[in-house]
Amino acid sequence: MKRRDILKGGLAAGALVLLPKGGAQGAPQNVPSLGRRYRNLIVFVYDGFSWEDYAIAQAYARRRQGRVLTLERLLARYPNGLINTYSLTSYVTESSAAGNAFSCGVKTVNGGLAVHADGTPLKPFFAAAKEMGKAVGLVTTTTATHATPASFVISNPDRNAEERIAGQYLEFGAEVYLGGGDRFFNPEKRKDKKDMYAAFAQAGYGVVRTPEELARSNASKLLGIFSDGHVPYEVDRRFQGVKVPSLKEMVQAALARLAAYRNGFVLQVEAGRIDHANHLNDPAATLWDVLAADETLELLTAFADRNPDTLLILVSDHATGTGALYGTGRSYLESSVGLDLLEGQKASFEHMLRVLGNNPDPSQVKEAFRTMKGVTLEDAEAQMVVEAITKKVYRPDGVRYGVQPSNTLSWAMVQKDAEKPDRPNIGWNSGQHTASPVMLALYGQGLRFLSLGLLDNTHVFRLMGEALGIRYQNPVMSEEEALEVLKARPVGMAHPEDIWA
Amino acid sequence: MKRRDILKGGLAAGALVLLPKGGAQGAPQNVPSLGRRYRNLIVFVYDGFSWEDYAIAQAYARRRQGRVLTLERLLARYPNGLINTYSLTSYVTESSAAGNAFSCGVKTVNGGLAVHADGTPLKPFFAAAKEMGKAVGLVTTTTATHATPASFVISNPDRNAEERIAGQYLEFGAEVYLGGGDRFFNPEKRKDKKDMYAAFAQAGYGVVRTPEELARSNASKLLGIFSDGHVPYEVDRRFQGVKVPSLKEMVQAALARLAAYRNGFVLQVEAGRIDHANHLNDPAATLWDVLAADETLELLTAFADRNPDTLLILVSDHATGTGALYGTGRSYLESSVGLDLLEGQKASFEHMLRVLGNNPDPSQVKEAFRTMKGVTLEDAEAQMVVEAITKKVYRPDGVRYGVQPSNTLSWAMVQKDAEKPDRPNIGWNSGQHTASPVMLALYGQGLRFLSLGLLDNTHVFRLMGEALGIRYQNPVMSEEEALEVLKARPVGMAHPEDIWA
Repeated sequence: MKRRDILKGGLAAGALVLLPKGGAQGAPQNVPSLGRRYRNLIVFVYDGFSWEDYAIAQAYARRRQGRVLTLERLLARYPNGLINTYSLTSYVTESSAAGNAFSCGVKTVNGGLAVHADGTPLKPFFAAAKEMGKAVGLVTTTTATHATPASFVISNPDRNAEERIAGQYLEFGAEVYLGGGDRFFNPEKRKDKKDMYAAFAQAGYGVVRTPEELARSNASKLLGIFSDGHVPYEVDRRFQGVKVPSLKEMVQAALARLAAYRNGFVLQVEAGRIDHANHLNDPAATLWDVLAADETLELLTAFADRNPDTLLILVSDHATGTGALYGTGRSYLESSVGLDLLEGQKASFEHMLRVLGNNPDPSQVKEAFRTMKGVTLEDAEAQMVVEAITKKVYRPDGVRYGVQPSNTLSWAMVQKDAEKPDRPNIGWNSGQHTASPVMLALYGQGLRFLSLGLLDNTHVFRLMGEALGIRYQNPVMSEEEALEVLKARPVGMAHPEDIWA
Repeated sequence: MKRRDILKGGLAAGALVLLPKGGAQGAPQNVPSLGRRYRNLIVFVYDGFSWEDYAIAQAYARRRQGRVLTLERLLARYPNGLINTYSLTSYVTESSAAGNAFSCGVKTVNGGLAVHADGTPLKPFFAAAKEMGKAVGLVTTTTATHATPASFVISNPDRNAEERIAGQYLEFGAEVYLGGGDRFFNPEKRKDKKDMYAAFAQAGYGVVRTPEELARSNASKLLGIFSDGHVPYEVDRRFQGVKVPSLKEMVQAALARLAAYRNGFVLQVEAGRIDHANHLNDPAATLWDVLAADETLELLTAFADRNPDTLLILVSDHATGTGALYGTGRSYLESSVGLDLLEGQKASFEHMLRVLGNNPDPSQVKEAFRTMKGVTLEDAEAQMVVEAITKKVYRPDGVRYGVQPSNTLSWAMVQKDAEKPDRPNIGWNSGQHTASPVMLALYGQGLRFLSLGLLDNTHVFRLMGEALGIRYQNPVMSEEEALEVLKARPVGMAHPEDIWA
């Protein structure tokens, strides 16, 4: 069935269709053009970053740190707009379909990397950039092999096949891979016992696994894996003494290598755990990962200033949880207090759960919330946390706030008194991704008068192509075709078991 | 204490200060200019409209109605950006401080209309426009005398003094006032028994109180008041036979009058109940009020096309509740189902509560949810609703979801099954306003290459001034001065008693 027939069918048939941009119903064509080329391309993805996250970070920086975010300056002074994030068959995307839209320029079904639901592989943009001689780098705070970075370089129907993806990275041969995921490289942890570190070393990579090794390395090609799974949150690195490099330190190491390549480079940087912190409804983890991203953004804009043949594309892939500073108190006059209270939060729920272990008692829970979240829990609240950890009794329900036990920990410290807030007045709509349009911003020379507006996320692919003079078209799958395939063979990762969608 | 001293004091002192745009800390200066003048100015306020609301309406229009929102076309093709919404002392604004920012160009404390916390009156923009000979119109779905319209024409330290504001409207003498609020005009309902309808009629206004009277009237000046309080929601007008004019019909009537004035006009249109529906966490009420606004937007852009000396400023004043379509099902593949389920929702909670009365039994509650929300409640959920209505036992807690009993009604129909959603996968972070930056868009001739970016909400005042060639500066109050005043004399409306912040 062709799309035209479906549209002719009118409302009943059309009801199943996510109208494409520029479709027969006259959806807006918005295809802004850079009007120039660049030598280097940096794509900085804030994963799971919503406008509410932005508001809290902007306000915290101003109010508690007396400074203005680099991101605020960018949004005020440089071209920015919004992107629609829906995937081929779902108005709510996950990170691989969002990554594919950026990297391949076409909508795909949630769950696979640079691949259509019927197995048709797509060519990711950094593969095309490599063919034209660009050096390639991937830096992330998630596992190095996670969906957002992986979707830019390789194709795999299963985004969770991260052992295999580590092998694909070796075959691909980017110059820099930095992030977490020891379990996918370490022979003692991999199911196939293969030593990926040795394999990368043999292929000429410097292999580093600590901040010190990263700082010391002189290697021109680099594999840096700093944690078993995802790189711990910035709030834990900063206040709990967790020993991993910051995102900025990783990006500094990447730029030092990539900038030396004569043909220029492409680099994806991902602040990947903003998404995770939002899944957990963990306000301090979100805030500090956004602030760490901002520090990195400052570094990247400074690099682009010194290297004016560099285009920086800053983008969020979707919103998650949309945790918001909400109004509280008479006439909402107490609303800013939540920002002050965030200053007392010195650890993530991830860290707290590690400290609490499998069988905490209520007094240990209270102590953990007091020292690490600056919150005094009532007895019933501490008990709620104990039951979530020990008995898998979760609050307040199993779908909307379904990322457990963390959503229950967040719920335990919900604000009770509107007039004298002693808990941050921050709330989440869910522990899940949402449909909101999200941030797109550009930084680079010659862009001051570019107007972006509301775009489709696939347009990032076109902007990247224009920047480097690379032009190709990946195969397009229609939503109806995808729905047919899905009927026969559900694809993608499990959910909510895999909470890191 | 001067701001400079505070900033010199560094972090500790600066911590109390919301840094002003362009302050010593180098906050971004972003003051885009129209570069031309217009004869007519229309300001269309989507009250309490968030990007998540946008996403749901865009998706519903595409998926269930097979069409593209006028708003989507505007955001794709015409200048748009984001505005910061914080008020003088709070990162979360309410509607009068937001209205003042637009209308007076300065930050004020939450709660008063065109006035500073110390009583210093401000000159609202439409008062200045009237002085230069512009006809003036206010059209809203709230009470005609509500904060957002009122802040554009009069000054009053108490936004809730709506009887008095009705009198101020008569003194001000705009050409068109349309909205709700019979209780503030009707002698049988006003505390002072004054007949405002008679007073307006004596001043030359045609007074209309039904859709039929509105359609029939030939009066050149018009007062139309169509409901006791706020104008009922579009979902109730459309599906429950509630007899009020639509927002579009009101705006048509206003334009027919205002366009006849030789010197041009200023008009504020407010889709005021998007905010209310969001406070209630009522997805269908939000959706249909956004769709009604979109129908009105189409009318307004068509007017601007026919009258190219017209500038349309489209703006949200803050987000409320940030109700989001969140991801559900394996790989979030079931996420679009919530949109289909919205089609079964045919009444607002406001209407349902009227139908259910003060003492419903669980079977009546179930029947109401089945017929009006398309949802089959479980026994415990129906009981939850009964207890909210009859015993004021509210779920899930008293602050974040504190707009009652409606937030409990919303909570009663929360999604339970992730894989087979039989409830819309829509969630709210709260029943309150939030801090998110919100929409600003412009429509009019000669603007195609204007870039907006992130702006302060006070910049709307400058854009209006530039459009009409009106330039004046209202007195600026510092945050420190405002905090001093607040210490001595709390101002503003009660909250959460007044849920319509």
